[in-house]
Amino acid sequence: MSTFEGVDFYAVDELLSEEERMIRSTIRQWVDDRVMPVIGEAYVERRFPRDLIPEMGELGMLGANLPEQYGCAELNNVAYGLIMQELERGDSGLRSFASVQGALVMYPIFAFGSEEHRTEWLPKLASGQAVGCFGLTEPDYGSNPAGMITTARRTADGWVLNGTKMWITNGSMADVAVVWAQTGDLGDVKGIRGFVVPTDTPGFSARDQKGKLSLLASDTSELHLADVEVPESALMPGSTGGLKHPLQCLTQARYGIAWGAVGAAMACFDEARSYAGERVMFDGPIGGKQIQQVRLADMLTKITQAQLLVHRLGRLKDAGTMTPQQVSLAKRANVDMACDIAREARRLLGGNGILVEYHSMRHMANLESVYTYEGTHDIHSLVLGQAITGIAAY
Amino acid sequence: MSTFEGVDFYAVDELLSEEERMIRSTIRQWVDDRVMPVIGEAYVERRFPRDLIPEMGELGMLGANLPEQYGCAELNNVAYGLIMQELERGDSGLRSFASVQGALVMYPIFAFGSEEHRTEWLPKLASGQAVGCFGLTEPDYGSNPAGMITTARRTADGWVLNGTKMWITNGSMADVAVVWAQTGDLGDVKGIRGFVVPTDTPGFSARDQKGKLSLLASDTSELHLADVEVPESALMPGSTGGLKHPLQCLTQARYGIAWGAVGAAMACFDEARSYAGERVMFDGPIGGKQIQQVRLADMLTKITQAQLLVHRLGRLKDAGTMTPQQVSLAKRANVDMACDIAREARRLLGGNGILVEYHSMRHMANLESVYTYEGTHDIHSLVLGQAITGIAAY
Amino acid sequence: MSTFEGVDFYAVDELLSEEERMIRSTIRQWVDDRVMPVIGEAYVERRFPRDLIPEMGELGMLGANLPEQYGCAELNNVAYGLIMQELERGDSGLRSFASVQGALVMYPIFAFGSEEHRTEWLPKLASGQAVGCFGLTEPDYGSNPAGMITTARRTADGWVLNGTKMWITNGSMADVAVVWAQTGDLGDVKGIRGFVVPTDTPGFSARDQKGKLSLLASDTSELHLADVEVPESALMPGSTGGLKHPLQCLTQARYGIAWGAVGAAMACFDEARSYAGERVMFDGPIGGKQIQQVRLADMLTKITQAQLLVHRLGRLKDAGTMTPQQVSLAKRANVDMACDIAREARRLLGGNGILVEYHSMRHMANLESVYTYEGTHDIHSLVLGQAITGIAAY
Amino acid sequence: MSTFEGVDFYAVDELLSEEERMIRSTIRQWVDDRVMPVIGEAYVERRFPRDLIPEMGELGMLGANLPEQYGCAELNNVAYGLIMQELERGDSGLRSFASVQGALVMYPIFAFGSEEHRTEWLPKLASGQAVGCFGLTEPDYGSNPAGMITTARRTADGWVLNGTKMWITNGSMADVAVVWAQTGDLGDVKGIRGFVVPTDTPGFSARDQKGKLSLLASDTSELHLADVEVPESALMPGSTGGLKHPLQCLTQARYGIAWGAVGAAMACFDEARSYAGERVMFDGPIGGKQIQQVRLADMLTKITQAQLLVHRLGRLKDAGTMTPQQVSLAKRANVDMACDIAREARRLLGGNGILVEYHSMRHMANLESVYTYEGTHDIHSLVLGQAITGIAAY
Repeated sequence: MSTFEGVDFYAVDELLSEEERMIRSTIRQWVDDRVMPVIGEAYVERRFPRDLIPEMGELGMLGANLPEQYGCAELNNVAYGLIMQELERGDSGLRSFASVQGALVMYPIFAFGSEEHRTEWLPKLASGQAVGCFGLTEPDYGSNPAGMITTARRTADGWVLNGTKMWITNGSMADVAVVWAQTGDLGDVKGIRGFVVPTDTPGFSARDQKGKLSLLASDTSELHLADVEVPESALMPGSTGGLKHPLQCLTQARYGIAWGAVGAAMACFDEARSYAGERVMFDGPIGGKQIQQVRLADMLTKITQAQLLVHRLGRLKDAGTMTPQQVSLAKRANVDMACDIAREARRLLGGNGILVEYHSMRHMANLESVYTYEGTHDIHSLVLGQAITGIAAY
Repeated sequence: MSTFEGVDFYAVDELLSEEERMIRSTIRQWVDDRVMPVIGEAYVERRFPRDLIPEMGELGMLGANLPEQYGCAELNNVAYGLIMQELERGDSGLRSFASVQGALVMYPIFAFGSEEHRTEWLPKLASGQAVGCFGLTEPDYGSNPAGMITTARRTADGWVLNGTKMWITNGSMADVAVVWAQTGDLGDVKGIRGFVVPTDTPGFSARDQKGKLSLLASDTSELHLADVEVPESALMPGSTGGLKHPLQCLTQARYGIAWGAVGAAMACFDEARSYAGERVMFDGPIGGKQIQQVRLADMLTKITQAQLLVHRLGRLKDAGTMTPQQVSLAKRANVDMACDIAREARRLLGGNGILVEYHSMRHMANLESVYTYEGTHDIHSLVLGQAITGIAAY
Repeated sequence: MSTFEGVDFYAVDELLSEEERMIRSTIRQWVDDRVMPVIGEAYVERRFPRDLIPEMGELGMLGANLPEQYGCAELNNVAYGLIMQELERGDSGLRSFASVQGALVMYPIFAFGSEEHRTEWLPKLASGQAVGCFGLTEPDYGSNPAGMITTARRTADGWVLNGTKMWITNGSMADVAVVWAQTGDLGDVKGIRGFVVPTDTPGFSARDQKGKLSLLASDTSELHLADVEVPESALMPGSTGGLKHPLQCLTQARYGIAWGAVGAAMACFDEARSYAGERVMFDGPIGGKQIQQVRLADMLTKITQAQLLVHRLGRLKDAGTMTPQQVSLAKRANVDMACDIAREARRLLGGNGILVEYHSMRHMANLESVYTYEGTHDIHSLVLGQAITGIAAY
Repeated sequence: MSTFEGVDFYAVDELLSEEERMIRSTIRQWVDDRVMPVIGEAYVERRFPRDLIPEMGELGMLGANLPEQYGCAELNNVAYGLIMQELERGDSGLRSFASVQGALVMYPIFAFGSEEHRTEWLPKLASGQAVGCFGLTEPDYGSNPAGMITTARRTADGWVLNGTKMWITNGSMADVAVVWAQTGDLGDVKGIRGFVVPTDTPGFSARDQKGKLSLLASDTSELHLADVEVPESALMPGSTGGLKHPLQCLTQARYGIAWGAVGAAMACFDEARSYAGERVMFDGPIGGKQIQQVRLADMLTKITQAQLLVHRLGRLKDAGTMTPQQVSLAKRANVDMACDIAREARRLLGGNGILVEYHSMRHMANLESVYTYEGTHDIHSLVLGQAITGIAAY
């Protein structure tokens, strides 16, 4: 299969700075060189390609929009988004790893953690020496984290955590977990708070989620916290906003997802375009048939729209005015778009479209997870509905 | 009904210059004041609101991106697009009038006409003192203008035109027509050429298209040219590109359509949002129901995508790098989007949605014309298909 | 334009009895002969073609499934459905007339009226000598008739009716109205009851709904009841089921709508198929292009599904086991299908598709009313949702 | 997980004979008992559950519409269809096995084979003692079998076969293959002919298709024929219709696929309905939310349409009047429907929807193969397009 050519019908590239373009190209090349040759096999073998982590760290992909002072690349949010886009062009599992590491572990440690938390963990997480996971979602509260039942009970010299967390990306390979728990009302510490928990703490265990049919090249686990004792210093001092703070993390992650979906869609379009030009049926390449041209035209249109959407979103984020509802719109629209494009690309590929040797069906399967996680499509419909009408309809 | 609030979920406004914003606001206000109160009645009575023309001229809406030297506003293409958007927020017929006048009459006179053509016609057309129409399409060659059978035969001192043109916006009220005809091969003058023809020339007649169920507030006519004699000077000297030149005009018009569709969609969304907030059914406003929230969320998403698309397109046009294929993408996507939004808005409005007192169904009916004219949706699919695959599949 | 050939890809015809086929053919021919030549003009002129009513009566189309003893054709429900199908192949307004007359006026008089009501009105309504209308819907209670505010107050020798009814088909030309009103609790007479009200009763007035953009060839009116005094005998004695009884009428009407939508869709498909075979663009008929073949294949598929749906529904109704929820499914699915087919047919017709000389856009506009009336699409979604989950979500 | 309740909103069951209903129930029960407990594991382990084959034979599922004289069940085509429906309710791979065995191996042996072929193979294939495969498709001629390059060269006492066949269901486990090859023009034997080839013939080999992301619980292989010598008696004497005969086999198989898709869709709907009733989020079961009710209503509608379609098709087949184009319509519509329903069911299931413990995503992945095989969706669009317009547009 040939090198990825990119998709840029509206010259969105010209809207990027020199540096942003360079970063995009670096990651794109790295994905071509290091990810594409191995991702199919990793997927079929149901394992995350862990040996790629140090390189990701080295190239600055982890927590890329956080300060240099903690070993991060301190890029703007458009550059950060472009990294997510290029990673998901490879595989949604790879981008999920980076999203969790950067937006759900490094970001809250940076934003709500103590200086000690930051200096201890951020450099290791940025370089890929350590891996982190984020424990918020629970089995019965997927779309309603307010219902969380994991508890943090205060002890003489710290806290005891108990509960179960589900759908935890990086869970089994993590060195550290950011865990959210109900503290009850403890005077100065009340409501939902975040803790930085090394995964080798006694009582902490993770179990691989078996039987996934999506995101096979990703570590998805269940966390069990059985009387996990942590010192007072494990509490993130800034996590005083109740549910607002973990939701803020999700907004960070979701921002990256909106970009990532564009990458997955670009990969599928590129594959379909290339296949349509080469695959001969009846009297010529199938790309010369109206049915396939309509398919390709629809794909290109949707990708162009998605590219402009995240570009604008990124500039708003860099300007500091981005709202969570704007992120909801982009996440919902772009993932939906990517799901459709992956399916249509797979279909254009005919029988070959079900093989892992091609990429579209892998993306198609992966994107169903992305459709559901970090706020399902339906939940974001209602977020937008509320933004429009002022009425909550959950 | 309340004042139009605009729709701007992604702060696209901030991407506009002060002047662009001001122009947009001026036209928006004018549409609120002058168009909205009369458009429903004009529509039901099947007439174009002609008394609005001079005001449109005065406010600089006609040929707005052409030079001041000919009485035009010499705006950039984003400002021009915003004018089209605001006009179509009122009615597609109004925008069609402006598109034809500006992009299909004034533009070719400016681009391919003689200096005499320019000085005679452009100021009058810019001010709305004169109305123009564009004669390219023929009854059997809607999507294939190359098949044109109207002829221009050379005489001793000029040309004789014969043929029929169909679907001619402004046809019956035009003072001047830009007519395209086959000249055959006449040495220096060959192929398809353009002529500037005053409509009072003997042999020239126009007939209202009866029985339209769309664009009722627009003048759509059939032109008949029966031995229409024009002097040599009627030939546009620059129209030497064969079909390429009239197609270039269509690109100009289509650019405005892509913007206009956004306006129609915004009008429908605004109406639906406002209705959803006020209409009580069962236990509260229908805007609080999930079904309607999904509908509104989908609308807002599509409008945001469309806004970013035309904004980018406009900047590309101003930079001089815009391609006809990029215009095809925006025309096709945005009109399709507007058709869907108008239909969904109408449906949200329930029974009231079929009344002209509301705007959505009028837009819905109008947009079917827009879907078809200036290159049907299907034709643009194939334009894009060719751009992607390199193979023509018409 | 050519004679209607019918659409029957799955030999549904063979499932009909000899008599059912004959009735279908008779009405089909009558529509070809009497409706098609005049319907376009009536539509543009915004009037119901009243001179067709006596012929409809003569051919047994009105209240066709009611007993011969009252002058009706006493056909089974499949034959009744086929009549609705053929009428709507002509125009939704025509079918609406027949639906109201038969299912919303004659049916309740037969089912809930006194023997006197039956003998006085049914023969006249069956023959078309009299026209009836049905007053249930009110301005603010479109989807929620339980909120009705029209009242019937008992007097010494009868009742006084007050209120406003909206979206009343046949309202202005009706001789008799079946009016539903709140009686309050009057001992033996409580809740919502039905009255048979001659429209020349003082205080009864009807006003044409102005400004419709759909169902133009139909009489849609608003009824005003200002101290309308009727004798005790005006009360329908059997209307003791509260809202259940008018809703039962709607089920009857809705059953016919599900059939009617098939007729509208068949008309559009037939027009599109015929146009595709004749319209030459580029190198041959557009019917030879893949894009149009996909369009036609989708249409044919949906029509075949719709035909089988109403056929089955009719047999269930004849067997006496049909449920209102089954009717909801067919009304919702078939009208949605017809809306889509009319739009796609219109689009296949290109520019010609916006002319009343063709039928598809007229159907497209009409069907938006049908989509909304007799239970909107959304309401039927929730009816089905409740049937599936057991939970009401209105 | 609970027992499958079936989906029958339009009482299609009543249209079945006592015997048909009994057969359906038997297979349904068998699938509940024997397939459901093992299919998830087989799927993840990428193997066809071969131990089920003898039971399928015993219950008469293999070649069920062929004569008893050869050990088959001699059922009508509706009963045959119901078996396919119930099998695919379990898994598309299981139904694919039965389709190939019955419609692509037993049917051609019965229809085109010699009496010797029949008596040797049909009883063994019917009982499941032997497994068969069908070699038609080649790597570069998926949608265009006329391009086949596998050859059969005549020798002194038989034939030598050479070529490669792709996407061969049951290929690796087959005992016998029906192979189609170009004979060239050999006087009495010309064009494409069919051969009955025991798979232990020297030169015959099969290779598992690696890297599938769909139909994991199915044997999909590539066949290699390298100088495979077979006796004259291997030639099927009745296979004299050129490509017409293998295409006839595909029509048989495709008929079963149209039924099978209904089963897959029913499984997904049943799972979604049940999940929606049990899964609590926010204040109650998600089945009480409008968004999910719309989803479920759409599913139920489409399944009902699909059920009526195949029921009618079956009756036409039993009457001997079914056309290949009617089969194309049902295959195309029903598989498309099933793809959409599987996806929507998976989405309703949220995060759980990606697990093999639930069924929807497995069906969703499987159905992509079904969408493509036995005539892709696009090819059937063109089959229908040609049936409608009379013009071939491949």
